[in-house]
Amino acid sequence: MTYPSRVKLVDVGPRDGLQNEKQPVPAAVKIELVERLQAAGLRHIEVTSYVSPKWVPQMADNAEVMHGLKRRSDVVYSVLTPNVKGLEACLSAPREEWPQEIVVFGSATEAFSQKNINCSIAESIERFAPVVQMAREQGIHVRGAMSCTVGCPYEGEVAPEKVGHLARLMKDIGVQHVGVADTIGVGTPGKVRAAFEATLAHYGLDEVSGHFHDTYGQALSNTLAALEMGVWQFDTSVAGLGGCPYAKGATGNVATEDVVYLLHGLGIHTGIDLDALIDAGVFVSQALGREPNSRVSKAIRTKRCA
Amino acid sequence: MTYPSRVKLVDVGPRDGLQNEKQPVPAAVKIELVERLQAAGLRHIEVTSYVSPKWVPQMADNAEVMHGLKRRSDVVYSVLTPNVKGLEACLSAPREEWPQEIVVFGSATEAFSQKNINCSIAESIERFAPVVQMAREQGIHVRGAMSCTVGCPYEGEVAPEKVGHLARLMKDIGVQHVGVADTIGVGTPGKVRAAFEATLAHYGLDEVSGHFHDTYGQALSNTLAALEMGVWQFDTSVAGLGGCPYAKGATGNVATEDVVYLLHGLGIHTGIDLDALIDAGVFVSQALGREPNSRVSKAIRTKRCA
Repeated sequence: MTYPSRVKLVDVGPRDGLQNEKQPVPAAVKIELVERLQAAGLRHIEVTSYVSPKWVPQMADNAEVMHGLKRRSDVVYSVLTPNVKGLEACLSAPREEWPQEIVVFGSATEAFSQKNINCSIAESIERFAPVVQMAREQGIHVRGAMSCTVGCPYEGEVAPEKVGHLARLMKDIGVQHVGVADTIGVGTPGKVRAAFEATLAHYGLDEVSGHFHDTYGQALSNTLAALEMGVWQFDTSVAGLGGCPYAKGATGNVATEDVVYLLHGLGIHTGIDLDALIDAGVFVSQALGREPNSRVSKAIRTKRCA
Repeated sequence: MTYPSRVKLVDVGPRDGLQNEKQPVPAAVKIELVERLQAAGLRHIEVTSYVSPKWVPQMADNAEVMHGLKRRSDVVYSVLTPNVKGLEACLSAPREEWPQEIVVFGSATEAFSQKNINCSIAESIERFAPVVQMAREQGIHVRGAMSCTVGCPYEGEVAPEKVGHLARLMKDIGVQHVGVADTIGVGTPGKVRAAFEATLAHYGLDEVSGHFHDTYGQALSNTLAALEMGVWQFDTSVAGLGGCPYAKGATGNVATEDVVYLLHGLGIHTGIDLDALIDAGVFVSQALGREPNSRVSKAIRTKRCA
C-alpha cells in the first residue's frame, strides 16, 4: 500500500469549529488559537467567515480577528466569503490583512442547498460566480467546499453523479480547489472513494481535499481510503471543534490530533508537533468549558499524567 | 479495492469488556447481554473466563453464567481458560454447558508477559500446552489471543518478528486460531499490516482475527487495513465495553456497533441487526450506569429522538 509521503492539513477549527458555539468566543481566544495552531506547525488555517452577523453572530468579529493576528509568512489564511458583500467587507481591510484564500460552499443535494443556504444549487453557483471572479482578480486563491457528498440529512445517500455535477459547476466558475465533504459523517470508505472519483473527473489530485465529520466514528477510515487514492490534503478541526447541527450532541469535524496520529503512524510527514497541537486543543477547549473531543488528545494526556 | 464479502464478529464484551468493572455485574445481566447479542445476530460470543476469583472477581460467576444461558445451536460460545485448573473447572459442568471454544493468551513482548501474567513468554506457552491438549482431546476449539502485537506499554513499538515468534509458539502447541491484538490501541494501519504479515507466516487467512482497541481512535482504520488483506474475523465489544487498565479513562475495545456500521457501509455481510445491537449496548450500559462508548450508538440514538 502506498500513501502520499507528505500531507497538508487545513485546520478549520477557528471558523467551521466555532461557528455553532452558543456562547460567542472572544476574538482574543480565536487569535491565540490560530497562533497556537501555526506554532504547532499548521500551515493552512481557516480563520473566520464574512457572513451576515444576523445569521452567524459568532463570526461578527471577523475583521478584528484578521487584524489582530500575528501572521507567519509561510501560513495560508483562509476565510469563508459566500457572497460579494462578504468579500467586499473582507477586502475593505488593509491588504496585509487579506486572506490568501477564500472559501465558497455548495451542496451536492438540492434539499441541503435549500435548507442550508436557502437557494437551489444552480442559484448558489450564480451567486458565487462574481465572488470567485473578484477574488481571483485580486490574486486570491478560491476553494470550494462541497457539502453532502456522501450523505444528506434530507435526501439520504447521495449518488456520485451529483458530486461530479457540483464539481463541474465549481470548475466552470473558476473555483481552483474543491473539498469533498461528508458533512454529516455518515460515509464509509467505498462511498467516499466514489465521491472522490466523481470529483477527480473535473479536478486534479492536487486540487482536491477531504473533509470528514466523525459523527459515526468513520472519519479516519475515510481518510485512509482517500490517502490510498493519493489525496494529500484534508480539513480537520483541532479538539474536534464543531458540532453537527443535524445530530445534537454528536461529534462534528474529525479532530486534527486524531488525523495527525494516524498520519505519523503511517510514516507520513505533516510538519505538525502533536504535543503542541494537543495543547492548542486543550487551550480552546478550556475557553469553551469542555474536554477536547479527540481520542488521541485524551489518551496522550492520560499518559502524561501517569 | 476488494474486501471479504462476509465478516464474522466475535463479541468479547461479556468477558473482556466486563472484567475490569469495579462494581461486579450480576450474572443475570451478563446472561441477558449474551442473549441479546445472539438475538441481534452475533454468532460467536466470548462469555466469561475461568480464572482465579482472587485475580478476577468479576468472573467468579462463570459457571452460573454458562449454566443460565439459553443457548442457540448456531452460536459459538468461548471462554478464557488460562490454565489447567481453569479448564478443569469449566469441564466439570455438564457437557451441554461446555464452551465450543477456549481462549488462551500470550504476549508478543516479554515485559507485558511478566507484568500481566507474571511469567516469561516461554513459561506461558509451557503452561498453555496441556490446556490446549486437554481441550482438543475433548473436541474443543482453541483460540490464542496474542497481546501487544503492535505496541507495548512497557517496551513501546513491537517488532513484527516478535509477533511471528509468538504465532509460531502458539502453532507449535496446537492453538488453532490466533487473534492479532493491539492491546493498548496505539497501532496504525502500516504496523497492523506488518503484525498480520508476521502471523500469516504461521496461520492461514481463515485462522486469524483482529482485535483492536480504540484508545487512540484508530481501530476502524486498522480494521480497514486488515480487511484489505482479506482478514474476515474480528473481536469487538458491544458498547465499547472494557477500559484499558494502562490508560485510565481512555477507551478500550472497539465498539461492535462502530465496526458493524463500517462493514455494512462497505456492503459486507455480518448477519447483525445494528438496531438490536445498539439496544443490547444500551441495556448493558444502563446496568453499568453509563453511556455506551460508541459513536455509532450515540449518532443513531440521537437520530431516533429527532
